[in-house]
Amino acid sequence: MTPPVITLTTDFGYTDPFVGVMKGVILYLNRDAVIVDLNHGVAPHDVRGGAFSILTGFRFFPAGTIHLVVVDPGVGTTRRPVAVKTANHFFVGPDNGVLSWAMAADAPCVVREIRNKDFMLDEVSSTFHARDIFSPAAARLSLMGKADDWEAIGPEVTDPVIIPFPEPVVTESGITGEVVYIDRFGNLVTNIRPNEDAEYTGVTVGDAPAIRVNGLSRSYEEGVGKDLILVVGSSGFIEITKAGRSAKEAVGAKTGEKVGITCGGGGQAP
Amino acid sequence: MTPPVITLTTDFGYTDPFVGVMKGVILYLNRDAVIVDLNHGVAPHDVRGGAFSILTGFRFFPAGTIHLVVVDPGVGTTRRPVAVKTANHFFVGPDNGVLSWAMAADAPCVVREIRNKDFMLDEVSSTFHARDIFSPAAARLSLMGKADDWEAIGPEVTDPVIIPFPEPVVTESGITGEVVYIDRFGNLVTNIRPNEDAEYTGVTVGDAPAIRVNGLSRSYEEGVGKDLILVVGSSGFIEITKAGRSAKEAVGAKTGEKVGITCGGGGQAP
Amino acid sequence: MTPPVITLTTDFGYTDPFVGVMKGVILYLNRDAVIVDLNHGVAPHDVRGGAFSILTGFRFFPAGTIHLVVVDPGVGTTRRPVAVKTANHFFVGPDNGVLSWAMAADAPCVVREIRNKDFMLDEVSSTFHARDIFSPAAARLSLMGKADDWEAIGPEVTDPVIIPFPEPVVTESGITGEVVYIDRFGNLVTNIRPNEDAEYTGVTVGDAPAIRVNGLSRSYEEGVGKDLILVVGSSGFIEITKAGRSAKEAVGAKTGEKVGITCGGGGQAP
Repeated sequence: MTPPVITLTTDFGYTDPFVGVMKGVILYLNRDAVIVDLNHGVAPHDVRGGAFSILTGFRFFPAGTIHLVVVDPGVGTTRRPVAVKTANHFFVGPDNGVLSWAMAADAPCVVREIRNKDFMLDEVSSTFHARDIFSPAAARLSLMGKADDWEAIGPEVTDPVIIPFPEPVVTESGITGEVVYIDRFGNLVTNIRPNEDAEYTGVTVGDAPAIRVNGLSRSYEEGVGKDLILVVGSSGFIEITKAGRSAKEAVGAKTGEKVGITCGGGGQAP
Repeated sequence: MTPPVITLTTDFGYTDPFVGVMKGVILYLNRDAVIVDLNHGVAPHDVRGGAFSILTGFRFFPAGTIHLVVVDPGVGTTRRPVAVKTANHFFVGPDNGVLSWAMAADAPCVVREIRNKDFMLDEVSSTFHARDIFSPAAARLSLMGKADDWEAIGPEVTDPVIIPFPEPVVTESGITGEVVYIDRFGNLVTNIRPNEDAEYTGVTVGDAPAIRVNGLSRSYEEGVGKDLILVVGSSGFIEITKAGRSAKEAVGAKTGEKVGITCGGGGQAP
Repeated sequence: MTPPVITLTTDFGYTDPFVGVMKGVILYLNRDAVIVDLNHGVAPHDVRGGAFSILTGFRFFPAGTIHLVVVDPGVGTTRRPVAVKTANHFFVGPDNGVLSWAMAADAPCVVREIRNKDFMLDEVSSTFHARDIFSPAAARLSLMGKADDWEAIGPEVTDPVIIPFPEPVVTESGITGEVVYIDRFGNLVTNIRPNEDAEYTGVTVGDAPAIRVNGLSRSYEEGVGKDLILVVGSSGFIEITKAGRSAKEAVGAKTGEKVGITCGGGGQAP
């Protein structure tokens, strides 16, 4: 049987051997594992950043892929280590909500606490569960012959920590939401999905003055010579972007910042 | 048949799941692909930086390797997605010149527009062609049994966008060129290839005063206690370096900055 | 035979194609090699940072793994390129001490100079031995059928450059050591191993005033609302950390900074 792919998403960055050590542990247990870095540049302790990374990424991997997601400020406390079987994938990580958006997107799912010592290293530190629990658990899952074998990992968890996805709110003049993610190019990814019937006319970010827009642009480059434009980004959400520059810097926005988009009809546009 | 290696060069950086998603798409289509990151630290939208990265890197990979190069500010516009077969390699990327230096270095080459929908994902966004067109195209190419099968990808392009490599100019007192690349250590890579017969005596970067040098140094460490020195870098071009420090910071240079190197004979040296 | 894993640790960073080119060379020679990045974020020319990365990482890889470690400010000078066979692993890198802590941790070891041209590329530059000597040497080692074949690589080196690991010193009031590594989260990793019998009561970093601590904390999160706390980090050494913040920034510490930890008994605590 072809062993499944294992993806890694962490806030461990690229200046320490942490991620490499995780791969060592996985290869030690399953020499044939195919390991893929999904994102290690999640900001330190940014659980929502990790949640959004895996939400937008997991669906492009083959069914049966095991996604290890470790943004874990509570390592060594009582927060539970969990493994999750969703409709098409497996997820492994801390029970702090980092998995909840992906779980919702690939429901139904069963959550189990990783409690079986066979799924851990012999020695478990209190500071590096990615190495001592999550990586060996992922490696063991990748060696499973039958799908049901995974139940040995530990008891079912019926009350996993869930971070509700921030849903946008329809208002009289349009829709309000927030910046859920900012990418390397400074594009502000909102939690607002495009509505084909809407005529978007303006956008506000935080307390900055409203900026007029002319509907959804098809490409980032359409923004050349303009202020901010709206684009449907690769994650399927509306992004606020600025051609050739960082929209983040242009408007000084942060994740969580309030966004308002005004729609059609005239009067309510800025 | 051993499946070919696929390399990835982008300006996507290391803080987002973009590159990981590309790998998911490739593995989804070809579970046996061997994927290698060549460089994802190209500065955002720096087409020349991408062109130089792949120019210096491609030749060290096995023949038949497929090189995916995506620095693509024009994604979603009319710029064409292309695949290129050169003497020994394949290249996939936007038709914006990012491939042109590698193409010239591994001529002859045939360029085709990626137009066959079988080489794309079912849904193609206007903002992430690396995921929706370039990665699946590379994966499909990696599954080709016979070399000629690749022609199905789309029609030949006879007028690909070419960025001419900036050639240095011989002057009365030496040679003038420019900084084509600056590496992590702050070494200034020029477009000037070493001439064994030349006696290099001085160097100027931009408008800074000339600095005396004593020919080509053999190692970076020879510069200890000196101002700038000249070294033949790993790309085969002359580099301007400063031992134990960043030459970039020492002289405040940028890519594209003019460089003058004076040669032998006495009078013309600074 | 399953080909061994090859790990890569360098100070090459993530903005240039250097690491990708190393992988090209390795795959060119051994298409079945499994290559793992251990850490490329070692600070430029920081030999001790590289030494600590490989010290904490190597043991989690399968026996027989070949660890390539290149932090090499002396490339092109007379410093020797070496390969080392330890009790369970192989190491390849410059003879500048970067391997010495891992060597001590997996003794006994035999060091050989890489002198056989069959273990190098045909053309060897003076500026990129990672590509021209270390990568091909690692690839050749990974193709060895019998363990003893590696002796062909070159003559034994009896006087390798050794950087002594900085051992802490027991004092009247506790123990003094130094910061040997600072990770992405700003945790200060010391050279002090925890003593189960000690009651740690205070800590000083550099010339900063002493801070009272209450023994070893079990998790980073225990430090919430406190000043610095002490934690046994994943490397087995005591770390000085600050919950939710960078201890590095909080105390302005650098690698090499002196650390004092006071122990039990009352009077000597700050």
